[in-house]
Amino acid sequence: VSRLHFPPADEQLAVIKRGVADLVVEGELREKLERSCRDARALKVKLGLDPTAPDLHLGHTVVLRKLRDFQDLGHQVIVIIGDFTGRIGDPTGRSETRKPLTEAEIQDNAETYRAQLGKILDMGRTRIEFNSSWLKTLTMEHVIRLTAHVTVAQMLQREDFAARYDSGRPISLHEFLYPIAQGYDSVALGADVELGGTDQTFNLLVGRDLQRAFGQEPQVALTLPLLEGLDGVQKMSKSLGNYVGINEPAIDVYGKLMSVSDSLMWRYFELLTRIPGSEVAALRAGHPMEAKKRLAATITAQYHGPGAATEAAAHFERVHQQRDVPEDIEEVLLPGDGGVGAGKGFESGGFRWPVWRVLREAGLVASNSEARRMIEQGAVEVDGLRVMDLNEGLEGGRRYLVKVGKRRFKRVVLGG
Amino acid sequence: VSRLHFPPADEQLAVIKRGVADLVVEGELREKLERSCRDARALKVKLGLDPTAPDLHLGHTVVLRKLRDFQDLGHQVIVIIGDFTGRIGDPTGRSETRKPLTEAEIQDNAETYRAQLGKILDMGRTRIEFNSSWLKTLTMEHVIRLTAHVTVAQMLQREDFAARYDSGRPISLHEFLYPIAQGYDSVALGADVELGGTDQTFNLLVGRDLQRAFGQEPQVALTLPLLEGLDGVQKMSKSLGNYVGINEPAIDVYGKLMSVSDSLMWRYFELLTRIPGSEVAALRAGHPMEAKKRLAATITAQYHGPGAATEAAAHFERVHQQRDVPEDIEEVLLPGDGGVGAGKGFESGGFRWPVWRVLREAGLVASNSEARRMIEQGAVEVDGLRVMDLNEGLEGGRRYLVKVGKRRFKRVVLGG
Repeated sequence: VSRLHFPPADEQLAVIKRGVADLVVEGELREKLERSCRDARALKVKLGLDPTAPDLHLGHTVVLRKLRDFQDLGHQVIVIIGDFTGRIGDPTGRSETRKPLTEAEIQDNAETYRAQLGKILDMGRTRIEFNSSWLKTLTMEHVIRLTAHVTVAQMLQREDFAARYDSGRPISLHEFLYPIAQGYDSVALGADVELGGTDQTFNLLVGRDLQRAFGQEPQVALTLPLLEGLDGVQKMSKSLGNYVGINEPAIDVYGKLMSVSDSLMWRYFELLTRIPGSEVAALRAGHPMEAKKRLAATITAQYHGPGAATEAAAHFERVHQQRDVPEDIEEVLLPGDGGVGAGKGFESGGFRWPVWRVLREAGLVASNSEARRMIEQGAVEVDGLRVMDLNEGLEGGRRYLVKVGKRRFKRVVLGG
Repeated sequence: VSRLHFPPADEQLAVIKRGVADLVVEGELREKLERSCRDARALKVKLGLDPTAPDLHLGHTVVLRKLRDFQDLGHQVIVIIGDFTGRIGDPTGRSETRKPLTEAEIQDNAETYRAQLGKILDMGRTRIEFNSSWLKTLTMEHVIRLTAHVTVAQMLQREDFAARYDSGRPISLHEFLYPIAQGYDSVALGADVELGGTDQTFNLLVGRDLQRAFGQEPQVALTLPLLEGLDGVQKMSKSLGNYVGINEPAIDVYGKLMSVSDSLMWRYFELLTRIPGSEVAALRAGHPMEAKKRLAATITAQYHGPGAATEAAAHFERVHQQRDVPEDIEEVLLPGDGGVGAGKGFESGGFRWPVWRVLREAGLVASNSEARRMIEQGAVEVDGLRVMDLNEGLEGGRRYLVKVGKRRFKRVVLGG
């Protein structure tokens, strides 16, 4: 399936190097690219993924888009699902959350991955491998031979191990075997290039060592920056809540991206879009809000198409761009388990809240009659749209900006 | 084959504890002994041996004699030949001397062991196992599960690893797996007790950890002191040359033991004999030379029988106990590849040197005729015995004290 004609090595290098954090070793990559052109042979480009977290967010896309670059240049992309360690779980039995995955769970996760990866990669030209298929055949003798090529001091130089060792927190010896397993994946594949976040540098270099020990040409280790989350400080991660999932609704993707700081915005332009540098420079010269809208629309369109991006932008305008919305608005959570009288006497479908009830429970009006009066006067807006009907239903499980008169604002999160 | 009636636990403990360096945990050993009595079940007592060094010396006998104690008490002794790692050799390929052993070499070494162990153990009741028989069946998954029970910090507390790590000398990661392999041997056997030198303490404790992880009752770790070599300083070892091999001729065993310092002698009494403490105390009250003869004769008899011990003692008397032998005698090496005219014109068997030739080549006489004259005068002694015949043959490959007249002495080492 791979293309057998490749662009000149220099041209490829320019594409590959954009946004890269580190490249070990550039000269070797150039040689591999030149040889690939001469022999009309695609390079094998490897990415390893953890089988336990198949919910991809924009942080993952930095490296996945780089993989797509290789694919667009005609190379062979191989995604490794690291199911071998997932099947083992936490052998110390200390972690409740790291139970061994079953065969069925791993297959399910792989399907989820496949669907999500398809938003970035051309899956028709993407090879997916499970590393248990070779790692489960290794014996203790193999492990001894593999581990002979790495020293304990090297392992303890890895940042996370160093920090734990120095602070006296225990490192189980089996944790030293995981980089070895990952490195052996490169041997099993004969990988030419491995991609990863900068936190993977050490593991990628172990792959080089093991390939050398097996008489293979070592892979090029290509690392990409870790994407900061919406807070602009911590690495984007689901557990920190500072993420944008690629499966989130278009409105949320757009809205979350509009919330980032101006400085983080330029970082996202670099790592999450392919908008040319010249165009980004032009945006820098203009108003930051215009640039941010361009960023949000571009990324939303990547995962939801241009139509959904336009709608999301319009929604955002209505809700957030009104001049009279103050900076600091109180947020109110209304639980969805049905307060006293919730929905009583009104034609409300499933999880819809009648707007009069929302106004009263959020404390925006003092009584049902005040709610009716304000709506009849056209003085109530939800997400920038005027409410015309007392019984209009608001969907549960979402967040709304509600305005009464000129001054009363609340953000209301509805349960359900 | 094991006896099913055992002495009372206290009585056994007294025998077992003699000469022991450390016992982890004594209370557990008592419980095991008591249960063994109750259930008429022998304890499994394990000793691991390196498959590459089958030349046993007195240093090894300290732990082997303790094993014999267990055997005499009726317990099941299991000797593990650590062939698994021997078959792998040095996986880094750096050590020329640690080439992988072949199946045939390992079998040869095992035969040599069997013959030598027979001088101390009752081989009819000794089980010999090769640890490759279970270790070669382990997979990488097993290794990960095993290593999960040990931390990196624990490993680096082991003295030899700590010293190397602190001084920046590399430790290959595979070296961390060897204690795990040895510990797993205890799991595979369900060992009740493991014996070793004090340098093995760490490995024996790993065995306890792994047995616990596998739901077994942990073995008791019983360590014995490392025996100082003849120099009284370094650990006895073949490579340092300060050893007494159990296969050396009786004369050499006796002679080497007579060379040790008085203080070392008492240590040897404790670790290498079973002479009761009261008797040793009596010897301490007498002349040290008498005590040393008792030590030398006792140990020589252990490996060569009482007859050979008596002969060795008589030989020693002749050679070393003459008052007129000076302290510092020149040593001369006569190569065995046949100097010019070696053996010519004389009826000398195989590797025997005619005594006249030894006298002349060692520079003890100036000519053949002086050699003849001195022998006829009865003025030549070899190892304290007067030489009567010009053509008397001295066996090659040995060391002799040669005396001519009252003043001329040389130690002569004959090749061959």
